[in-house]
Amino acid sequence: MKNIGIIGGTGYTGRELARILSVHPEVRITAMTSRQNAGTEVSDLQPNLKGYVNLKFTENIPDSADVDLVFTATPHGASMKQIPSLMEQGIKTVDLSGDYRFKDRKVYEKWYGFEHTDPENIPKAVYGLPEFYRKEIADAALVANPGCYATSAILAITPLVNTGLVEGSIFVDGKSGTSGAGMNPSPRLHHPACGESVIPYGIGTHRHTPEIEAVVKDVTSEDADVFFVPHLIPIVRGILSTCYAGLTEETTQEDIDEVYEKFYGKEFFVKYTEEPSIRSVVASNHAEVSAKVRGKNAVAMCALDNLVKGASGQAVQCMNIMLGFKETLGIGTPGLGV
Amino acid sequence: MKNIGIIGGTGYTGRELARILSVHPEVRITAMTSRQNAGTEVSDLQPNLKGYVNLKFTENIPDSADVDLVFTATPHGASMKQIPSLMEQGIKTVDLSGDYRFKDRKVYEKWYGFEHTDPENIPKAVYGLPEFYRKEIADAALVANPGCYATSAILAITPLVNTGLVEGSIFVDGKSGTSGAGMNPSPRLHHPACGESVIPYGIGTHRHTPEIEAVVKDVTSEDADVFFVPHLIPIVRGILSTCYAGLTEETTQEDIDEVYEKFYGKEFFVKYTEEPSIRSVVASNHAEVSAKVRGKNAVAMCALDNLVKGASGQAVQCMNIMLGFKETLGIGTPGLGV
Amino acid sequence: MKNIGIIGGTGYTGRELARILSVHPEVRITAMTSRQNAGTEVSDLQPNLKGYVNLKFTENIPDSADVDLVFTATPHGASMKQIPSLMEQGIKTVDLSGDYRFKDRKVYEKWYGFEHTDPENIPKAVYGLPEFYRKEIADAALVANPGCYATSAILAITPLVNTGLVEGSIFVDGKSGTSGAGMNPSPRLHHPACGESVIPYGIGTHRHTPEIEAVVKDVTSEDADVFFVPHLIPIVRGILSTCYAGLTEETTQEDIDEVYEKFYGKEFFVKYTEEPSIRSVVASNHAEVSAKVRGKNAVAMCALDNLVKGASGQAVQCMNIMLGFKETLGIGTPGLGV
Amino acid sequence: MKNIGIIGGTGYTGRELARILSVHPEVRITAMTSRQNAGTEVSDLQPNLKGYVNLKFTENIPDSADVDLVFTATPHGASMKQIPSLMEQGIKTVDLSGDYRFKDRKVYEKWYGFEHTDPENIPKAVYGLPEFYRKEIADAALVANPGCYATSAILAITPLVNTGLVEGSIFVDGKSGTSGAGMNPSPRLHHPACGESVIPYGIGTHRHTPEIEAVVKDVTSEDADVFFVPHLIPIVRGILSTCYAGLTEETTQEDIDEVYEKFYGKEFFVKYTEEPSIRSVVASNHAEVSAKVRGKNAVAMCALDNLVKGASGQAVQCMNIMLGFKETLGIGTPGLGV
Repeated sequence: MKNIGIIGGTGYTGRELARILSVHPEVRITAMTSRQNAGTEVSDLQPNLKGYVNLKFTENIPDSADVDLVFTATPHGASMKQIPSLMEQGIKTVDLSGDYRFKDRKVYEKWYGFEHTDPENIPKAVYGLPEFYRKEIADAALVANPGCYATSAILAITPLVNTGLVEGSIFVDGKSGTSGAGMNPSPRLHHPACGESVIPYGIGTHRHTPEIEAVVKDVTSEDADVFFVPHLIPIVRGILSTCYAGLTEETTQEDIDEVYEKFYGKEFFVKYTEEPSIRSVVASNHAEVSAKVRGKNAVAMCALDNLVKGASGQAVQCMNIMLGFKETLGIGTPGLGV
Repeated sequence: MKNIGIIGGTGYTGRELARILSVHPEVRITAMTSRQNAGTEVSDLQPNLKGYVNLKFTENIPDSADVDLVFTATPHGASMKQIPSLMEQGIKTVDLSGDYRFKDRKVYEKWYGFEHTDPENIPKAVYGLPEFYRKEIADAALVANPGCYATSAILAITPLVNTGLVEGSIFVDGKSGTSGAGMNPSPRLHHPACGESVIPYGIGTHRHTPEIEAVVKDVTSEDADVFFVPHLIPIVRGILSTCYAGLTEETTQEDIDEVYEKFYGKEFFVKYTEEPSIRSVVASNHAEVSAKVRGKNAVAMCALDNLVKGASGQAVQCMNIMLGFKETLGIGTPGLGV
Repeated sequence: MKNIGIIGGTGYTGRELARILSVHPEVRITAMTSRQNAGTEVSDLQPNLKGYVNLKFTENIPDSADVDLVFTATPHGASMKQIPSLMEQGIKTVDLSGDYRFKDRKVYEKWYGFEHTDPENIPKAVYGLPEFYRKEIADAALVANPGCYATSAILAITPLVNTGLVEGSIFVDGKSGTSGAGMNPSPRLHHPACGESVIPYGIGTHRHTPEIEAVVKDVTSEDADVFFVPHLIPIVRGILSTCYAGLTEETTQEDIDEVYEKFYGKEFFVKYTEEPSIRSVVASNHAEVSAKVRGKNAVAMCALDNLVKGASGQAVQCMNIMLGFKETLGIGTPGLGV
Repeated sequence: MKNIGIIGGTGYTGRELARILSVHPEVRITAMTSRQNAGTEVSDLQPNLKGYVNLKFTENIPDSADVDLVFTATPHGASMKQIPSLMEQGIKTVDLSGDYRFKDRKVYEKWYGFEHTDPENIPKAVYGLPEFYRKEIADAALVANPGCYATSAILAITPLVNTGLVEGSIFVDGKSGTSGAGMNPSPRLHHPACGESVIPYGIGTHRHTPEIEAVVKDVTSEDADVFFVPHLIPIVRGILSTCYAGLTEETTQEDIDEVYEKFYGKEFFVKYTEEPSIRSVVASNHAEVSAKVRGKNAVAMCALDNLVKGASGQAVQCMNIMLGFKETLGIGTPGLGV
């Protein structure tokens, strides 16, 4: 049994980590932090965890927690305050914020608007998408867990870009359930405002844009010029990214199918399907990818649960790899289907 | 043409008033107030009103507005600060808060937790449910517009109580769309929290309880002991109240149908139907009522749009009566159906 | 007062026509047809119309209806059986199906899979998008009312295409409420299947694709190569189309704003806005369009109510023009906002 | 490892059984039947099971399946055709239909409208609510798995009725997600009809009424006169039952809390909470119960996932008991929370 700490245990990704880890057969949660709720029983705030997590929030991870690995489920800008000390102590860490996702500190600073205060640890960080960085994750001290939209767009378009056939911009139309926007009430997330609507936002300015571009480039060695428009959809969990691209020449559906099968045919969590379905993957760590060509146009899609494969489930997948467990341990369950 | 002022023009009931009045053939809105947004174009905040309301929010109603009637769409406790001056100036007023709904000031103070600072004008106030107080509204200087849950429960149970057959408590199970909770974001109204749930709240303590009891008693001269549990439902507009009661003796469905037909057969806005449907009335000033008996048990139901017949539409219905217009003017449109 | 007939009165567009026309000040519905429900009171099937439509469904439009104009709210393929006789009788007609939307019969036959049995009347048909064909509609004997997705995409991209700057395909990501799919229950529209999901369908094969291409070409004289992917969204009413295009050269937001303002600045029903909102237009005949450029990429969006501006409201707008009424008569009401 | 068969593998409860059992550590599914889909891969119809269930539907359970226990996830009336043969072969069975829930065959026949063709096996059947019939289930050859509404109402009101204080009828207001109505598309379950509505149905005539009455009576030896009105709510999964009762005398909240704690304090799956939350239990086998008294009125509530604790999860809980496993095996996971 390994001991796990969660820094930032009250947000949606923190509580989702606790939900998953509380029934993981090879780890136990020995610390969950929360400044505001230090001293409160975790299950008083998160009643679904009653009987599963018997722990009080603490302000910091106590020595007694004796942690083997820590998840930082903290906001962008807050993680880089926590990581240096964890690295110094030699504690393996999976960070769920955007702070260590960029090799190029300048890109981070431009899109996030913060100065990066821990540039030293940036080179250590491995991007936590196991389907593309499995080996690197196994040896990493620090994993930068991908963004939810980014995961879906990268899984959707990487095989397509890898063909070298994409010409011009890739237009990523992201459609996300509201839990992706976090737990803080706001006018946009107020039910009467969003409950019967579809709300585009952050047009061309969303921070996952450079993340998608950099990772696709890194994996394929091809440039990807991404134009990304996220939309809020009135569902609680789930993302569907619909990604459009023009091709330099016509290709057949069979060729495209072969490309994608080659990428994902052996993956347990990512399935190449005829039609991607949020219901099929919701509450699971699975993603469904599909791609279609029509003449010189292509569309690639990916459906996943933004809180699982798009955040905490993927973080646990990375943890499994980092701690030498079977990659699917504790997360190998099917989506709800209905 | 009469001139209308709206005090509190940014909340959901204020903007719904503007939506309705902006196309009313016999009135024009000459003032809308908002402390926070004074100086802002109304349609900048409420883009659906662009082309319909050409007005800036003002802090108070200016003399130049020359108002014939004012709606106070202000929070409970705030209306009673506004009404005395309006009454003094002889301006007819429809108040959408709970401040003047109770003849007995003590009941108000107990349930709302405020001291009533304008007891003097309480006796002037007429309860704004035209189906039961049409004549009194015609002569009123001040109308206390009913609560949304209260309207639906009162319309549902009054004919039943009037039979004198009800024994014991009446259990009112209220189910409301989220717009009924107002425009301020809160953890409960946050989409990820309420979007796939049904949330009971204020069990036995909701302020519409004594309102229902007092009005039913006033109309029927029978006591009504109401136990009310409201529930938040993940729809934007609409209330369905399901009201249960035991009877002193068995009665037939035919007898009950006759009772309700007698009450509502001539009403334009309230229809006695086989099965009440929110879709049938949504976006309209209509309500659908139905009642069923099974042996010595009865259930009475009412569906309405909480922002229209449950608030601003009914307020305009009262205005029409107070200003001598046809009661249906500007609000005689069918529900969406789909 | 003009007399109006509705052929196909039980589907969603037929009943929406009845909802709108029942309170139109210058017309009365004198006939609604339904084969299956002939003899039934309209309001027994559509309870929201009780008190508004006092009419029984008939199998055909009776002579006694003495109609001045007829709406054919019949399925694709069925309208072209009805129109010849109406044209012969000299009855002005607005057809809500796709049967007369294509000047080129071959395009229709290819995408709809039917042989066109009334090629003779195709040349008479005017495409019923008043913002672009107002004058032609005024003189038309037959109007082909646009498709819902098509209306939103055409309104979004026409000004952009008109600049001549678009290069390559235009990717139209359509997001529609479920009422757009009609009243027949099906596995895809079953609430447990679609209620918490986003469902892409008809990828690159949806029939509105050639409609968008043809109309944009006709209006702008520029080619538009459209790749269209519709998605089902779990809302009842509303469409948001997000349309992506690459540009031959960089342009400024100011230039684009000017282009759109020139197109829509004088239009009452189409508003050029910062951010298109379904809530702002729902239950109204309004559409909101916006456009953004980022370097050599552009996105144009349009929000509307699929049953109103996307179908029956627009049909009534055409009727107003055809019968010489003010264009906004009976449909000049703001969207719900909330 | 035990071998499990599922008769009726395509409906919602059948596929939910497969979802749960596919990751259960002590059983494997060796047969799933479907008349219509015999020969089809299970995961072709239910893509969420790809990688989890490698099996083709068969028309009947083949001998090669060598089953230790069978679930009959068949419609009411169909199960009693299957059970006799299973009983004869000595195969332990959990039936998810209503066919064996009633000791009194006459009650079944009255409410279900079928003649019971297998009265012989009725006495063998144990009602599959482990919290009340744990010991009997352990020894049962045949378990009649409870209805979803029934489970929630029984868990809510049994402790209250057991006090002997209830007077008059118990009014059960059921609110269910749409998956409770099964997989067959119908006008009521069509998204445009139910997606923004709350729909009462089967008023006083729902078949779970006598089930609730009989079980509560059996457990408490007190009569329970239940008046039940179910409502369809636009969520996919989840039931909240709000149950109202008058009391013969006033009691305190402390007394009621003690009563409920005594009933459920040691139960793992049923939690007595301050406020029942569907989000807290969704996708899990947990139920949350709460009860409040106000003077001589009481309200008892229960939230659960209709497909898990309300159907297939509870069936697996029974299976665990019948096969001598730990009761929580394979179903001891927390609800989603968000």
